[in-house]
Amino acid sequence: MSERNRRFVLRERPSGRIGPGTFEMFDEPVPNIVEGEALVRTQWISLDPANRGWIRDVPSYVPPVEIGEVMRGLGLGRVVASKHPAYREGQLVTGPLGWQEWAVTRDAALLQPVNEIAGVPVSAHLGALGMTGWTAWVGMTDIGRPRPGETVVVSAAAGAVGSVAGQIARRRGARVVGIAGGRDKCALLTERLGFDAAVDRQAGDWREQLAAATPEGIDVDFENVGGEVMDAVFARLNLRARVVLCGLISAYNDVEPPPGPRNFRILLTRRVRLQGFIVLDHLERRGDAVAELSGWLAAGELEVLETVVEGFERLPTAINMLFDGTNVGKLVVHVADD
Amino acid sequence: MSERNRRFVLRERPSGRIGPGTFEMFDEPVPNIVEGEALVRTQWISLDPANRGWIRDVPSYVPPVEIGEVMRGLGLGRVVASKHPAYREGQLVTGPLGWQEWAVTRDAALLQPVNEIAGVPVSAHLGALGMTGWTAWVGMTDIGRPRPGETVVVSAAAGAVGSVAGQIARRRGARVVGIAGGRDKCALLTERLGFDAAVDRQAGDWREQLAAATPEGIDVDFENVGGEVMDAVFARLNLRARVVLCGLISAYNDVEPPPGPRNFRILLTRRVRLQGFIVLDHLERRGDAVAELSGWLAAGELEVLETVVEGFERLPTAINMLFDGTNVGKLVVHVADD
Repeated sequence: MSERNRRFVLRERPSGRIGPGTFEMFDEPVPNIVEGEALVRTQWISLDPANRGWIRDVPSYVPPVEIGEVMRGLGLGRVVASKHPAYREGQLVTGPLGWQEWAVTRDAALLQPVNEIAGVPVSAHLGALGMTGWTAWVGMTDIGRPRPGETVVVSAAAGAVGSVAGQIARRRGARVVGIAGGRDKCALLTERLGFDAAVDRQAGDWREQLAAATPEGIDVDFENVGGEVMDAVFARLNLRARVVLCGLISAYNDVEPPPGPRNFRILLTRRVRLQGFIVLDHLERRGDAVAELSGWLAAGELEVLETVVEGFERLPTAINMLFDGTNVGKLVVHVADD
Repeated sequence: MSERNRRFVLRERPSGRIGPGTFEMFDEPVPNIVEGEALVRTQWISLDPANRGWIRDVPSYVPPVEIGEVMRGLGLGRVVASKHPAYREGQLVTGPLGWQEWAVTRDAALLQPVNEIAGVPVSAHLGALGMTGWTAWVGMTDIGRPRPGETVVVSAAAGAVGSVAGQIARRRGARVVGIAGGRDKCALLTERLGFDAAVDRQAGDWREQLAAATPEGIDVDFENVGGEVMDAVFARLNLRARVVLCGLISAYNDVEPPPGPRNFRILLTRRVRLQGFIVLDHLERRGDAVAELSGWLAAGELEVLETVVEGFERLPTAINMLFDGTNVGKLVVHVADD
């Protein structure tokens, strides 16, 4: 266990893809805490498409990370020392720890205690029981609202959000079609996660696969990707379809915004409801989401996919797995053992 | 009064703009009715952007008009003979009479009786009290739902739908900004219709005008136009804004669909709700819409704009006024006196 605190700070905003010059690693002594502070040892760091948005210098739902600041990121760790009444030593917590091995917090509401579930790895609290699971649950339950028998399409379906979103839709009685890159991911969707069909984005005939998998059109698009995949999904939307606009990862590295959907007019002629959403707007639903997902997880009724990258120093390269599509399920970096 | 029945039939689908070869005029004897039919003398024909969509050979909310069929269109006329229990002689009715001087109907539910209001021209039943007024009312009241003090932007604001939509938003206590082409239309919006500000789409500085007119951003976009105007409006949407997607007239003559909105991503980051709608889905609100609009009209609290083109034979040229923006308010063709 490191006696120094290694931290990645933002060195320059990437134009396009995150590269070797984007972050710089510093180390410093492990901080001493003063009255009103708690010290957390980072164990896991969550890598999310949102990380890419946070270092973009444009107005968004949170201010961008500034040059020279520690990179923003969600993590999970254990409180190792506390002079803050809200935190007690030994407690496992999740929250915006940042890309650092040790984090000091002064804010009582910032970190959430983790209720460990027997047989469930703690990293699930960054995935299916964390922000991504909660995103999937709110988006599908409150916004997409699939009815039994309806057809739901989930893009980036083997990703952290998509893999949970599709399973939720299945449990609500919908027919669920996942779009993912590669035959292995597609097999995972249908064989392990119970999706009704999968469309291989890397196959030459992916459009035909999508048509074959959605013979009655599409009632709910849980959209994580954008670009030409979204265009193809839009073309098959049914009357009064819902688009849960959760992510547009295909363009997150683009310098210029990409062209919008070619068939935007379909949203009018088919009377589609499209709702952009950020889970942070739905704090009041967190309890319900975590309760239902925890129940399924404890009962073995929810499959959790996870890709673990070993070692703090690999954060800046591991993040590109999200954009290359090389991760399956939740992408986490393991920083330290318990 | 013509003793022949002139009718325009669809001759060929226009690629782009409606031209001299699009429709062909025929005449035939005024039809005799048989048991179960009623004969209506057309007085007014409504010209609407929807006409353009109806002759496009793509799936939409209604089947396209077929080659050789009488052009579909809403109209207003008087029942001159009836052998149908639902219609009585002398009754004024509105509905899909088509582009013809006389129409025979067999369908009891097709035409609605008109309740004339003293001092209000009957053509208002094709505009503010007809489909376009009802569209404005449903879109603003049920979908846009502006709250007092919010900023509402209406594109094509001097058009049939926009001019009513903006006035409704004003009556709900919102700050209303209209976008229209030309200084005369803009003056009409602020001086006669009570809009808080107007943006002249034909001015070189229209983007700056839009920014100046919406210093606190935009909460509701009542979208009738699409294209670069919509892009500029999207860029100024506030968190949790609503887009009432009512029309995309800028592209109705396009052969290929135009690029979608450049800043589509804003719908995600600002958590926008966008709803495509067609008023025909909201039949249950027609009574409420007409009741409120009639009340305002009778009380002189709703300004009605209308452009009247004289003569049945001018239908195929008059329709292009909608796309050229040369009409103000509801565009109607006067076919015959009462």
